[in-house]
Amino acid sequence: MQNDTIAAIATPPGVGGIGMVRISGTDAFEMALPLLRRPGGHSDVPPSHQLTYGHIVDPTTQEVLDEVLVAFMRAPHTYTREDVVEIQGHGGPLVLQRILRVVLAQGVRMANPGEFTLRAFLNGRLDLAQAEAVMDLIGSQTEAGLRLAMQQLQGKLSTQVQEARHAVLGVIARIEASIDFPEEEVPIPQPDELRPLITEALQQIESLLAGAQQGRLYRQGLRTAIIGRPNVGKSSLLNALLRSERAIVTPIAGTTRDTVEEVANLRGIPLHLIDTAGITPTADPVEQIGVQRSRAAAESADVVLFVFDGAETLTEMDQRVSDELQVMGFGGQAGSENLSSKHKRPVVLVMNKADCPQRLEIDELQRMWPGAAVLKTSTLTGQGLLELEATIADLVQAGKIVQSDSVLITSARHQEALRRATEHLRAAFDSLEQALPLDFVSIDLRAAYEALGEVTGETASEDLLDRIFSEFCIGK
Amino acid sequence: MQNDTIAAIATPPGVGGIGMVRISGTDAFEMALPLLRRPGGHSDVPPSHQLTYGHIVDPTTQEVLDEVLVAFMRAPHTYTREDVVEIQGHGGPLVLQRILRVVLAQGVRMANPGEFTLRAFLNGRLDLAQAEAVMDLIGSQTEAGLRLAMQQLQGKLSTQVQEARHAVLGVIARIEASIDFPEEEVPIPQPDELRPLITEALQQIESLLAGAQQGRLYRQGLRTAIIGRPNVGKSSLLNALLRSERAIVTPIAGTTRDTVEEVANLRGIPLHLIDTAGITPTADPVEQIGVQRSRAAAESADVVLFVFDGAETLTEMDQRVSDELQVMGFGGQAGSENLSSKHKRPVVLVMNKADCPQRLEIDELQRMWPGAAVLKTSTLTGQGLLELEATIADLVQAGKIVQSDSVLITSARHQEALRRATEHLRAAFDSLEQALPLDFVSIDLRAAYEALGEVTGETASEDLLDRIFSEFCIGK
Repeated sequence: MQNDTIAAIATPPGVGGIGMVRISGTDAFEMALPLLRRPGGHSDVPPSHQLTYGHIVDPTTQEVLDEVLVAFMRAPHTYTREDVVEIQGHGGPLVLQRILRVVLAQGVRMANPGEFTLRAFLNGRLDLAQAEAVMDLIGSQTEAGLRLAMQQLQGKLSTQVQEARHAVLGVIARIEASIDFPEEEVPIPQPDELRPLITEALQQIESLLAGAQQGRLYRQGLRTAIIGRPNVGKSSLLNALLRSERAIVTPIAGTTRDTVEEVANLRGIPLHLIDTAGITPTADPVEQIGVQRSRAAAESADVVLFVFDGAETLTEMDQRVSDELQVMGFGGQAGSENLSSKHKRPVVLVMNKADCPQRLEIDELQRMWPGAAVLKTSTLTGQGLLELEATIADLVQAGKIVQSDSVLITSARHQEALRRATEHLRAAFDSLEQALPLDFVSIDLRAAYEALGEVTGETASEDLLDRIFSEFCIGK
Repeated sequence: MQNDTIAAIATPPGVGGIGMVRISGTDAFEMALPLLRRPGGHSDVPPSHQLTYGHIVDPTTQEVLDEVLVAFMRAPHTYTREDVVEIQGHGGPLVLQRILRVVLAQGVRMANPGEFTLRAFLNGRLDLAQAEAVMDLIGSQTEAGLRLAMQQLQGKLSTQVQEARHAVLGVIARIEASIDFPEEEVPIPQPDELRPLITEALQQIESLLAGAQQGRLYRQGLRTAIIGRPNVGKSSLLNALLRSERAIVTPIAGTTRDTVEEVANLRGIPLHLIDTAGITPTADPVEQIGVQRSRAAAESADVVLFVFDGAETLTEMDQRVSDELQVMGFGGQAGSENLSSKHKRPVVLVMNKADCPQRLEIDELQRMWPGAAVLKTSTLTGQGLLELEATIADLVQAGKIVQSDSVLITSARHQEALRRATEHLRAAFDSLEQALPLDFVSIDLRAAYEALGEVTGETASEDLLDRIFSEFCIGK
């Protein structure tokens, strides 16, 4: 645990009206104060949390770097529970870099990604699940995702996990008291007495786990690849789906030129639509690169929209695309259970260009992909688009759970830890059934207790913390 | 002039630790207060400029949108000189949009681009030149540009313009007193008495104008197109120049795929390096688009780096590129005056691949472009790169002026207004010389006075204000 003084640009990169450099740590006040020149020549620390007007000056050259509002915030009433200084300057990248540079020249260290929030966690302001919610909140792509993140930040998940954990601890205490003080008046607890207590904790955790797959969808979204031979209307379909229910639509950074990825809002689930160039082999070396990228996109997709031209008969190329998808392990059955790893990932067949005279039969497609949903669409008239959305939504039961106020697990890490907790509770239950010594029961209960503690961070290893906070942005 | 209450996201778009929504106007406090839920249930307005912890709540649904710090800042000690509320939330686009949405639902209007700064100007906190400096400060790409913007924001340009304006007004007052009160004791001023006063004002403005071309370079940078036939090392040269003295290197948004534009730092001047695909005609329709874009880039360039392969003899293609550049009006002469519109724009000839056995003679290139600088470079060994930079720097006299503390005009608008002021002052001077009635002199002096007032905004029209502030980002 470190408590040196750290600083970073806290606002998003890029150009805006206002930007902020944040400093946190024992020496934050002492190091920031010499950089601030105030009207009237005041040089004392202003009252805590007071926005104070002045200029940031490079102390070596006396050059004025920016006109600012500065707040000196006294621990513990701060984000990190340390002394914090916020410098609000103009929102230009170079202005903020220069302010940061003179701050660092005072002996302040550049903050690591997520280090402010890590300190908030280490100093007890947030538990680990709440700290993780901070990142989810910032990255949310739909309002449903935002709501779940805010719920988690407010500690609703933590409270439920703590309740289960407390219940488990109660059972452990009963058992261990009888083991530790056998000669005293502590009666040995009977299996009939312990079983319902374990079952109750188990049910609490299982009800949390029940929504985990949905929760993860709300947070991570659904990767949906739009696939088909050239000129069947893949890009038009992408645009049509985006127009009809648009979330924050931005091309995802790092997307290759050949595959376009946009995010639509499917009843609160971020629908990552990936428009592919084509996945069938080609001799052209440039096209080959496109095909490789498209194939990678398809392979990582949760769902495929396989698009056909309804105004033409099936071509050999359609068949080849179909074969490729079969090889990749896509299957035709609809139903949310298909999204789990045990089943084939679903394909939705889209007969596009329904506004033209039709030469393709639904039967043909159904023979090709038995059990898969088939829809007729026209990106020109809008026909079938709502049905297509409804079909995708049904695949993942979108919109069914987020209406309620129930807490949803959104993180794979939480899901994993809770799953381990249930396994240990079941093992403890079995040991009781088999009348094994209470030591055996106790070991599993302890393991469950530890696993639950990982969610809120009571039992998180340094490795785990490193892994979690390294995914944060710098300045948070 | 409006004084309704406005709001906008003030921090840069994108993902970061902290984001801010800013509200300004008469009803800012009243409209923001119902959105804030504080621990302890406080509902009064917190002390001015105090960062107050709480949650932003949607008043219709009671849903908690974010955990925030809020500052209520009482006029006139604010950026706009109006009541201002700053809501600091998490730096995610969707979080901030939702906060903004509930603010707007209170009856607040979405701010126009630059409207906060426009209000600061209208309310007398900043003059127009200072307001423009705010935008320059945010967009600065080099430290020299930043320094000039900060100087202007602090009013150094305004002071000098006001001094010249005050001098002109002095002359006007002398003349007009004698015109208005001919029967009284005010003596008619003599030309010999007025001439030195006009000359003094003229010199003040001319000394400001002297640095205008340099100043604009520091702000806008130098567009430098890298041109040559394929495989002479254009992209390597771009990378080499970027590596050696890198500013904020980001691909400029909106750049086409075929031409790559990056910004290097040439002694404080943002050097916009444009790597072109090729400018010679081609039959391939896709390449044609690239050629069109490259040609447009070359045509808009201030300087061309014309790159040759020193390890090969001149080719027909080199000759064709050369012809194209001649047609575009590039000339060989070095010297900063070439950057003015009256002269041909300069070409620097770069013999690349100096690390290979040379088969190209300097003489050949000098015959092709008489008077142009020729340099041998190797992007492999770094040979010649510093010389190349020095050559470009000499072309624009980079680094010569910004060292001093003298005020530099960086804006075309200011240059234009000052130029008009000098013209009117010269006309006034000539009228005196020709012994024309003092009315004539006075009219030109008034026009000069008005022109000077445009710089600081005393005499700015609503149209001009609209034009200036519409270039700001929203939230500033």
